[in-house]
Amino acid sequence: MALTIGVDVGGTKVAAGVVDEQGKILEKVKRATPAASPQQTADAISDTVIELLGRHQAAAVGLGAAGFVDEARATVLFAPNLAWRDEPVKKKVEDRVGLPVVVENDANASAWAETIFGAARGHKHVVLVTVGTGIGAGFVVNGQLYRGRWGVGGEPGHYRVVPDGRLCGCGNRGCWEQYASGNALVAEAREFAGRSPAGAVRLLQLGGGTPEGISGPAITQAAREGDPGALRCFDIVGSWLGHGLADLAAILDPGCFVIGGGVSEAGDLLICPARAAFESSLTGKTYRPFAEIRLAELGADAGLVGAADLARRG
Amino acid sequence: MALTIGVDVGGTKVAAGVVDEQGKILEKVKRATPAASPQQTADAISDTVIELLGRHQAAAVGLGAAGFVDEARATVLFAPNLAWRDEPVKKKVEDRVGLPVVVENDANASAWAETIFGAARGHKHVVLVTVGTGIGAGFVVNGQLYRGRWGVGGEPGHYRVVPDGRLCGCGNRGCWEQYASGNALVAEAREFAGRSPAGAVRLLQLGGGTPEGISGPAITQAAREGDPGALRCFDIVGSWLGHGLADLAAILDPGCFVIGGGVSEAGDLLICPARAAFESSLTGKTYRPFAEIRLAELGADAGLVGAADLARRG
Repeated sequence: MALTIGVDVGGTKVAAGVVDEQGKILEKVKRATPAASPQQTADAISDTVIELLGRHQAAAVGLGAAGFVDEARATVLFAPNLAWRDEPVKKKVEDRVGLPVVVENDANASAWAETIFGAARGHKHVVLVTVGTGIGAGFVVNGQLYRGRWGVGGEPGHYRVVPDGRLCGCGNRGCWEQYASGNALVAEAREFAGRSPAGAVRLLQLGGGTPEGISGPAITQAAREGDPGALRCFDIVGSWLGHGLADLAAILDPGCFVIGGGVSEAGDLLICPARAAFESSLTGKTYRPFAEIRLAELGADAGLVGAADLARRG
Repeated sequence: MALTIGVDVGGTKVAAGVVDEQGKILEKVKRATPAASPQQTADAISDTVIELLGRHQAAAVGLGAAGFVDEARATVLFAPNLAWRDEPVKKKVEDRVGLPVVVENDANASAWAETIFGAARGHKHVVLVTVGTGIGAGFVVNGQLYRGRWGVGGEPGHYRVVPDGRLCGCGNRGCWEQYASGNALVAEAREFAGRSPAGAVRLLQLGGGTPEGISGPAITQAAREGDPGALRCFDIVGSWLGHGLADLAAILDPGCFVIGGGVSEAGDLLICPARAAFESSLTGKTYRPFAEIRLAELGADAGLVGAADLARRG
């Protein structure tokens, strides 16, 4: 049985795992990411892989990293949370570990994993949207990962949903991730608590008394308790999410959307308003089937598992 | 040399042509579309094809129609300008003409033609946007036509660019085609002329004295003469177009955009503001190449030529 190693390269930690053909992780190790140094980041990845290779025989290595990866799946053009700029990651890691290396955008790797092993099994047209601090995405089209001309497609988090809207880290205004992300959820709750403290008693309590103390998990907890303000925050963010999915359906027509990322742990609190907005705003809805909207199943390991499987397929 | 027949099925006329392997039209015939009757529309297509088959030997037939075509390329699910609803067009025409028939969305067929024979030759990742009364689109991905799960992808004209925006024929508000189409151009000019007749003297003159008389070609003519109001109308519509292209680039990352449709005949009047808006609003623009934005080359024959070529490829 062919084992491969998948590595999830995040801004704070590198997680590497040995993965079998069924997507099962046999062993996983983590290390801190020396994100400020391009070379040390590559070295940390290689060290982690070499550690695993001391205990397992693996045939290839897949790296998933947040950022633009070129179409040759070799170079990270830009990574927002790392110092990598036009960094030849594939070559650097191959030279150290002596195995073929594939580099992939982390959301692409997650989309692949959810399609092969997770929530979208059996589907050939899948859009994964990860709702975390921002929005990540990966597309599977005709059973293949979608990369685009230069490998930088699949970034709907930065399509514009509001002209002259909220400023985004990408430099533009009104990007989808400013409205349908964990950051948006928290901003909504804090603004509400600052404006109407009497209505936000429970949120403020969970936030240690100040609007700034209110976190995503606190909003989820309050919403699960039935707190109307917290529920409304999920309705607002879920609606923006669902509207965006309808836009993506107009463009991409997937059979299945998979919603992952930290905010998706709130489950129906996010998915129900998203599905309602999706179904009410899908263009041509009378004449077309509705895509499924499912929660991701593989959690935080999706990127690692997907990268390992992509490495196996070469 | 294998000849095939391409048919452009419009709401007012059916145009059919015999097309060779280089995309050259050897003969073209037209007939009125009996659009109110699903059966008569199919018959008019068959009659036109049979007429051409009397004078040419052809191996297959491709139909391009505005509407949702199913993923088997056999049934038109819905066509806004025809009475077709779940119409088994492939079977009906095959039974009459005795040749294999492929049905395709007309914008998809045009995108294919522009990629193989037109403005996007040599590109493998192409987005065609036709700017006419509304907005049509077709995508080529990895050298293949993009269809989506149910064959209804590639409709960015109905993604939402303005929350609670202008009402669209699809029933939603704020669709792109309400801002970046020929209809939008004309609406902008008429509103301007109604509000500021003194500033719109030339537009009103070309419109026969009333705002309602101002047509798309009149706006183009006034803009070519340097009329500031007409130029501003093109700037507004071109900017919406370019913003939308930036959104599509965030999602799809094509190597080349091709702009077709009636409004594209205005050339640089439309393309220059579109390109400026695209380049200023592309996310991650510092770290990625810019897609080309080109004018379509095949004009109104693109759908017919593309359908014929798709039929040839089977």
